[in-house]
Amino acid sequence: MTHAAALEQTLHRDIPITREMGIRVAAYDSNQLRLSAPLSPNVNDKGTAFGGSLYSLAVLCGWSLLHLKLKEAGLPHNVVIHEANVRYLLPVSQDMTAECRIDDEALAQMFAALENHDRARLPLDVVIRQNEHPALAFSGRYVVLK
Amino acid sequence: MTHAAALEQTLHRDIPITREMGIRVAAYDSNQLRLSAPLSPNVNDKGTAFGGSLYSLAVLCGWSLLHLKLKEAGLPHNVVIHEANVRYLLPVSQDMTAECRIDDEALAQMFAALENHDRARLPLDVVIRQNEHPALAFSGRYVVLK
Repeated sequence: MTHAAALEQTLHRDIPITREMGIRVAAYDSNQLRLSAPLSPNVNDKGTAFGGSLYSLAVLCGWSLLHLKLKEAGLPHNVVIHEANVRYLLPVSQDMTAECRIDDEALAQMFAALENHDRARLPLDVVIRQNEHPALAFSGRYVVLK
Repeated sequence: MTHAAALEQTLHRDIPITREMGIRVAAYDSNQLRLSAPLSPNVNDKGTAFGGSLYSLAVLCGWSLLHLKLKEAGLPHNVVIHEANVRYLLPVSQDMTAECRIDDEALAQMFAALENHDRARLPLDVVIRQNEHPALAFSGRYVVLK
């Protein structure tokens, strides 16, 4: 099983609310990860996606991408979210997909930091789109601990 | 039934993931609201509270306090979160309680804005403590639409 395929099981086992949210690994191409979740279990009083579920999907998308890159590199991995800013730009009235991309330079910096220090700090942006328009803009600062 | 007692039913009915999270109304004293949730359904891979669940509890605490104040005032209420910043200060290894307080001046400004405009913007801070130390600091910007 690939690390990406194992990720969904890891999320559902270790963070059980992700099962209730219906979170799935939608796509992974080594530098980009997409996580999805159906609207129905994550709906709010307005019939659109609950802001907490949108945030959870976004924060997990960044966390999971780092988890995969560290696992592929054979490194011990303990990734935590340290701080985040989130802007709600449009209501989401359909199933949600979060996208996170990391470039090779940021990855190289992270690996270099982990060689010389006991932790690396990494900013990651995640977006959830509604009909191709950004609906949630998430900027997180993650910490990777050795 | 008081508005505060009805709030828990409203949350569980209209935002169904709050049932799975086990969110309860813990206390309400007119200017302060506390929402709680057990650790178990909200746990992460480290045995502490999942950052997305901490955020969800916090964003709902602010949302719910505005919901109650508007309902008590007999005003139509449509509260949405517009933007938030969240800082994770300590891991939370026990049941979670979020606290949000609003002062009378901020409330008066909100009601005045709603008299003259179709919306009011309102910043609200929410904190989740672990053994009396702030573990999550949430600053949200909510919008109340008439």
